[in-house]
Amino acid sequence: MSYTAPVKDMLFDIEHLANIEQIAQIPGFEDAGLDTAQAVLEECAKFNEGVLAPLNFEGDKNPSSWKDGVVTTTPGFKDAFRQYAEGGWQGLQHPTDFGGQGLPKTIGAACGEMLNSANMSFALCPLLTDGAIEALLTAGSDALKATYLEKLVTGEWTGTMNLTEPQAGSDLALVRTRAESQPDGSYKIFGTKIFITYGEHDMAANIVHLVLARVQGAPEGVKGISLFVVPKFMVNADGSLGARNDAHCVSIEHKLGIKASPTAVLQFGDHGGAVGYLVGEENRGLEYMFIMMNAARYAVGVQGIAIAERAYQKAVGYAKDRVQSRPVDGSIAASAPIIHHPDVRRMLMTMRAYTEGCRAMATVAASAYDAAHHHPDADVRKQNATFYEFMVPLVKGYSTEMSLEVTSLGVQVHGGMGFIEETGAAQYYRDAKILTIYEGTTAIQANDLVGRKTARDGGQTAKALAVQIEKTEAELLANGSDAAKAVARRLTAARQAFLDVVGFVAGGTKSSPNAVFAGSVPYLMLAGNLVAGWQLARSLLVAQELLHKGQDAAFMQAKITTAQFYAEHILVKAPGLRDSIVEGAASVTELALEAF
Amino acid sequence: MSYTAPVKDMLFDIEHLANIEQIAQIPGFEDAGLDTAQAVLEECAKFNEGVLAPLNFEGDKNPSSWKDGVVTTTPGFKDAFRQYAEGGWQGLQHPTDFGGQGLPKTIGAACGEMLNSANMSFALCPLLTDGAIEALLTAGSDALKATYLEKLVTGEWTGTMNLTEPQAGSDLALVRTRAESQPDGSYKIFGTKIFITYGEHDMAANIVHLVLARVQGAPEGVKGISLFVVPKFMVNADGSLGARNDAHCVSIEHKLGIKASPTAVLQFGDHGGAVGYLVGEENRGLEYMFIMMNAARYAVGVQGIAIAERAYQKAVGYAKDRVQSRPVDGSIAASAPIIHHPDVRRMLMTMRAYTEGCRAMATVAASAYDAAHHHPDADVRKQNATFYEFMVPLVKGYSTEMSLEVTSLGVQVHGGMGFIEETGAAQYYRDAKILTIYEGTTAIQANDLVGRKTARDGGQTAKALAVQIEKTEAELLANGSDAAKAVARRLTAARQAFLDVVGFVAGGTKSSPNAVFAGSVPYLMLAGNLVAGWQLARSLLVAQELLHKGQDAAFMQAKITTAQFYAEHILVKAPGLRDSIVEGAASVTELALEAF
Repeated sequence: MSYTAPVKDMLFDIEHLANIEQIAQIPGFEDAGLDTAQAVLEECAKFNEGVLAPLNFEGDKNPSSWKDGVVTTTPGFKDAFRQYAEGGWQGLQHPTDFGGQGLPKTIGAACGEMLNSANMSFALCPLLTDGAIEALLTAGSDALKATYLEKLVTGEWTGTMNLTEPQAGSDLALVRTRAESQPDGSYKIFGTKIFITYGEHDMAANIVHLVLARVQGAPEGVKGISLFVVPKFMVNADGSLGARNDAHCVSIEHKLGIKASPTAVLQFGDHGGAVGYLVGEENRGLEYMFIMMNAARYAVGVQGIAIAERAYQKAVGYAKDRVQSRPVDGSIAASAPIIHHPDVRRMLMTMRAYTEGCRAMATVAASAYDAAHHHPDADVRKQNATFYEFMVPLVKGYSTEMSLEVTSLGVQVHGGMGFIEETGAAQYYRDAKILTIYEGTTAIQANDLVGRKTARDGGQTAKALAVQIEKTEAELLANGSDAAKAVARRLTAARQAFLDVVGFVAGGTKSSPNAVFAGSVPYLMLAGNLVAGWQLARSLLVAQELLHKGQDAAFMQAKITTAQFYAEHILVKAPGLRDSIVEGAASVTELALEAF
Repeated sequence: MSYTAPVKDMLFDIEHLANIEQIAQIPGFEDAGLDTAQAVLEECAKFNEGVLAPLNFEGDKNPSSWKDGVVTTTPGFKDAFRQYAEGGWQGLQHPTDFGGQGLPKTIGAACGEMLNSANMSFALCPLLTDGAIEALLTAGSDALKATYLEKLVTGEWTGTMNLTEPQAGSDLALVRTRAESQPDGSYKIFGTKIFITYGEHDMAANIVHLVLARVQGAPEGVKGISLFVVPKFMVNADGSLGARNDAHCVSIEHKLGIKASPTAVLQFGDHGGAVGYLVGEENRGLEYMFIMMNAARYAVGVQGIAIAERAYQKAVGYAKDRVQSRPVDGSIAASAPIIHHPDVRRMLMTMRAYTEGCRAMATVAASAYDAAHHHPDADVRKQNATFYEFMVPLVKGYSTEMSLEVTSLGVQVHGGMGFIEETGAAQYYRDAKILTIYEGTTAIQANDLVGRKTARDGGQTAKALAVQIEKTEAELLANGSDAAKAVARRLTAARQAFLDVVGFVAGGTKSSPNAVFAGSVPYLMLAGNLVAGWQLARSLLVAQELLHKGQDAAFMQAKITTAQFYAEHILVKAPGLRDSIVEGAASVTELALEAF
């Protein structure tokens, strides 16, 4: 088996950290308790392990290809997508009104991780479709919803996000694609979009492009951007497909990784204008796009966890199998599997601790999302929304940055074999590199964390988080085990470092923007590190309690050790980051431009 | 220009940190002063910038290919190698007796960096040839020297190192290739070697394989390994080429990077036995191989610096060119080149500081090598040899690990364009990953640092190094500038962290091997970080002095800022590493094997 879904660890997080039974008390989620979670995860594991995981390497060897405007995906992808749709997986978290299953994100996120572990290139198609669904649900007219939503939710059609243009990447103010209003209420769209994931493919009957463009006469900058639905094929009144729209794929990119996922250059309107339909109101496109993007950013964070998990599993497999050199402690008198060597252990533990820590963080964030959107009490909704919003840049930024380190270690564990493409470890290293870039680079996430999430409320949300963490420290000290005390010590130091930085950021964003933004990514890394470490600290407490009750000793013991490793080898970086941010800002921007 | 050799920075290090004028006082190096260094570096820059750098991307697109035992290199490589040989570059550091130029390593290392920045895949051929030359110089008989050395030194032939077998990577005790002695004093070699860099190619008339094998009846393990010369073509008494030897390339690997460099599987003796000649004495092969490996390890460290430099230059070019978003400080009222954004600065400064720090460390190590091998005073030789030996794992391990981070940042600076292969940034990311693996993985370097370089002398060499560093701290404090004080503070903390770890390692390697080796790589990273930071601290002192004298203010100011950035953003990691090593060892190896 090339991938075994970590169902047990996921269920541990869902039950004990995200408190699924509390989610199940929210109206609409009554059936979404632990039993449902377990049943869904096990079914999901079966599908991903059996159908998608075996196609992952194949996708790298035989990527999507382009010819005369037509994109042919990797052999097997089309059939796998049919199975994916038939299994109802696309609709997992979407409303039952439109053919979905209406499950909470707390469960959906775990399924998303499996999908991405199994086959990240494949998973991008559903990921983008989710974004299109979110945007239509939030801002689409009833007519647009009626025409598009069910087809998207059931996986009959797929969706895309069209933001980037050659001159407009992180800076959407520079978008030039234009929309001309037509007498019938539709628009004609003209322009070029690049980096469009699954912008063209052969896996579904239609593709629903969500496109940012400027209506003639709109204000300059981001306040003049509107959002449009532009279908690949026009849709007749009865829902059947009509004429081909004037939106064409003129090429796909030759990329470092995720090669099976076609990254399209789309040309809109070269033959008279692509027909588009306004989503919501004119000039509010960026706002709607942020809805898609926030969902997508969380999902990309999960991709980081997913690829880290797969890289970890592969490395463990090799380390148990590869025999080389005697253990330094003399415990085996002959050459032994390399997992007996302390540095191989260190690498595997690093991979494991990062992955479990980020999974715990993402799962808790997902449960906050569910409460934020569905809890009957407005105050609870607001509190959870604030927490979730704070988490999004951490889940996206930290989980993807850690995935670079984890996939690199995955190659390293394999030694020379890791560098050979047939081994497969290198693919994860290549695939992961996109994660810190798309849906907003790590710097963009850090800007969000600094500006909207920290400075705007004077650091209140961040400080409230620190108060929560302090409570966990007290519980660890009360627990009193060696592991708990070791973790408490590092958690306290990291939280204090975090609070110093929060004060620096909240106090200086307006007065000393260069100094604050010089430390924005280190701040994100510190915050993500802290929150993931905090969740592992909570895990340790749960595991010790269950261990005392005699439940699954091996699993609980491993959880305790992993939490301690995280604290002593990863969380321990926090004070150094604090020093760099708070005391080292000047040297970041001091060098004269000409000196570069 | 795709690459501009950093001649000025190299000469700064050579003059002020490595004290080339002292090297020039050593007999044999009288002509190797600063003027020579400058002339050689400028000539070398011209060749590498003009001939080899433009072939680098081509090598990635059109890698070496194998057909029926014949390897065809990338178009242009063969001619470039002819020019390389004609320019005398292969012989730069080798004895004049055999056609070399006899220049010190202090100069040669800088040339090696340029070669590898320009084209790492190409550079591997000369790198391996250097290793073969070293081994023959040290242990070869006069007959072997007479037959092979001049051809290798002049670049007419090339050399290889044949260590690895499918079951024997890091663990050479497992080598199975066997050698049968023949009545004429030669041997017949039988076996399979893998991962043989330039094991077959079309750039030179002959290939001289240096092969580890076991003579029949030899002891088991590493004490029964001998070293043999196995030429691709037999060499007649008059030096002309004779029959094809029974050493054949049966395939080359499909790799993550350095694609133009053919990585061969070599089959020895499938057709009756490959003719081999013993180098030195039987069963001392590993010892000789270590000579080659030590030279090669240093050279691989330089490869890390080289690829980091190239990635840095590419990222700077893009950051100055790409216009996106307004600067946060409002200094420009429109979208500006991204180099104006603090986080882009942070990334570029990180790349620059790592690269300059490791270059300084490597240059100083090279000057110690020169004194260790050529100084007339035996005590000076010994002292320098000890220092150089301590430096080799740091130069190799730290410079290559940092190159992973630097090349990853290089992609990141390019945003989405970085992920597109045509951009070229991704190639460095892929190429760099081999550097932490071959010629001994980082863990193998760390074992060397812990065992042979630290524990064996009870930490004496390490502590002597710390005394040197403490002197620099005193000079920084005496200097008293803000930058000097800031650097002194971090250097002191890092040195103290280092000393704690040295005590832990020296005291525990025998009694608690698992605990010590659990921290071996973090120890290496701490030590490398410290030494590179120390050399930048020395650079700062020199730069401030020269600044006062009015010399090249822009360069000196940049050097000061880079040193301060290094201290505040890289050196600052040292105390956290200390905590992980000294206080976190148990959690590394505690997890039950079954829990993975």
